Amino acid sequence: MLPPTITKSQLLSNFDTFVFDADGVLWTGDIPIPGAAEWINTLLDDPEKSVFITTNNSTKTLEQYMKKVKKMRFGRLGRENLLSPTIVLCDYFKQNSDKFENQYIYLIGVENLKKSLEEGGGVKCFGTGPDHKDNYTDGDFINEVDVKSKIPKAVVVSFDSHFSYPKLMKAANFLADPLVEFLVCNEDSTFPGPVPGMILPETGPWSAAIQNVSGRKPDIVFGKPHEQLANFLKSRVQAGKFNSERTVMFGDRLDTDMMFGKNNGFTTVWMQTGVNTLLDIELARKNGESTKIPDFTCRFSEF
Amino acid sequence: MLPPTITKSQLLSNFDTFVFDADGVLWTGDIPIPGAAEWINTLLDDPEKSVFITTNNSTKTLEQYMKKVKKMRFGRLGRENLLSPTIVLCDYFKQNSDKFENQYIYLIGVENLKKSLEEGGGVKCFGTGPDHKDNYTDGDFINEVDVKSKIPKAVVVSFDSHFSYPKLMKAANFLADPLVEFLVCNEDSTFPGPVPGMILPETGPWSAAIQNVSGRKPDIVFGKPHEQLANFLKSRVQAGKFNSERTVMFGDRLDTDMMFGKNNGFTTVWMQTGVNTLLDIELARKNGESTKIPDFTCRFSEF
Repeated sequence: MLPPTITKSQLLSNFDTFVFDADGVLWTGDIPIPGAAEWINTLLDDPEKSVFITTNNSTKTLEQYMKKVKKMRFGRLGRENLLSPTIVLCDYFKQNSDKFENQYIYLIGVENLKKSLEEGGGVKCFGTGPDHKDNYTDGDFINEVDVKSKIPKAVVVSFDSHFSYPKLMKAANFLADPLVEFLVCNEDSTFPGPVPGMILPETGPWSAAIQNVSGRKPDIVFGKPHEQLANFLKSRVQAGKFNSERTVMFGDRLDTDMMFGKNNGFTTVWMQTGVNTLLDIELARKNGESTKIPDFTCRFSEF
Repeated sequence: MLPPTITKSQLLSNFDTFVFDADGVLWTGDIPIPGAAEWINTLLDDPEKSVFITTNNSTKTLEQYMKKVKKMRFGRLGRENLLSPTIVLCDYFKQNSDKFENQYIYLIGVENLKKSLEEGGGVKCFGTGPDHKDNYTDGDFINEVDVKSKIPKAVVVSFDSHFSYPKLMKAANFLADPLVEFLVCNEDSTFPGPVPGMILPETGPWSAAIQNVSGRKPDIVFGKPHEQLANFLKSRVQAGKFNSERTVMFGDRLDTDMMFGKNNGFTTVWMQTGVNTLLDIELARKNGESTKIPDFTCRFSEF
């Protein structure tokens, strides 16, 4: 059964803070969802409303993200409207600068994330790019993997298509020291698209591998549905203005977006334009996974 | 508190089937444990006793294993005394030859395992060796990973120091078909040694990564502490002669060896010569993990 529909006027009168997932909600890949840009503009026009776009994707710099948004005619969205694990992680490093400033981070992630963390977080990252068994001699490669000369303050785990055995080994050995923090950008298992029917692994499997070998759980996960992002979002709303009960989360994924909303006391609106389907909602209902079940649905094209 | 000591004469009078872990129990790396070879020989001399060496390691062929055993003066051990996930997996393929004979297996594992499975299991394996993002062009590599042209009957997961993003992608896409079996050799998180203080990942983390992205649990895990190995072991004892209550398991690891014994109704003897320490036993007691707590301990050098 489809969740009940919520109308534009109900949304405008009941909520002050509007949180959106991006891919599958405002656009699909590079194609805008009909009505999404107009709806975002309506909200941005109202000085009483706060608008946030929340993505779990850590593969673009903020500059690249702003370009993408402009290209799709969401040009009035500013940097202050965008939230991602990268931005929250940079803020975390800055808030804890006594520990992290100019310190080493072992980064499982892409070059763009390295650039963002170094510029925005004030840390020095190492480990990005290829690091395969082939880089070491065959017989003794295990003894050659350097897990001793540069000990980082944290291991940061994000999407990395170069992940490898030596990287896993380094992460496990660094994390054997309980003082080295284990920070995970997001735990999505897969990306949505871009090739229909093809499964594309995201950060989740590498995080699972490192948890398995290190015996540790992440100290912080920065993306949806975790609280670090919610706390950051609250801090971005004008002081004294944030109210969970007057906050609404629009998303397509049950396990990130809907859970993020529900875990933080927001009203949730499920969009039918993304990854999850009505069948997934029925399954969540059957399994009693109440935090995945949306309160409402709607279509921006009908606003 | 150390488990109570069991004596040689108690062992000989109370048990008919003697199961041993190898590394940490009979030898450490290439160094035999004092008294182990003499004890094994005593048991092999007795026609009423069955003796099995059980390893979770799938990186050597049976021939290489026999050579290693001979070099360490366990020369009277024969092929029939050795059990590993590889041997049980070959048996599984043979038992199900209508499905598997001459069929493709996507193998995450070493060349030796490929050789063993092809010769002993009658299957054709593909996927071993390097398969990195670097093998594909940068912009579109995801579209270039071939997950369509050769669909295997099973994905087999074992230790692989070449594991990579394209391999994870292939495993995930193959396993999207519920008819493709998900077979895991063992789930040990780490190897014991050989470099003191250095963590060396085994199969566990790659299995965890594939489970995370595919949303599937393995159909069968072949190594300790799982039942497939126990069933195979029972089938190797002379018909009508196997009795769980008269079977004893010697091991050093709580989460594989002791659990394997306990899960199958064997008496367990913990050896102090391997990976786990008395502290680990205290921790298991504190956490109420009763299947990890050994019944007895002993030293072969005192026999």
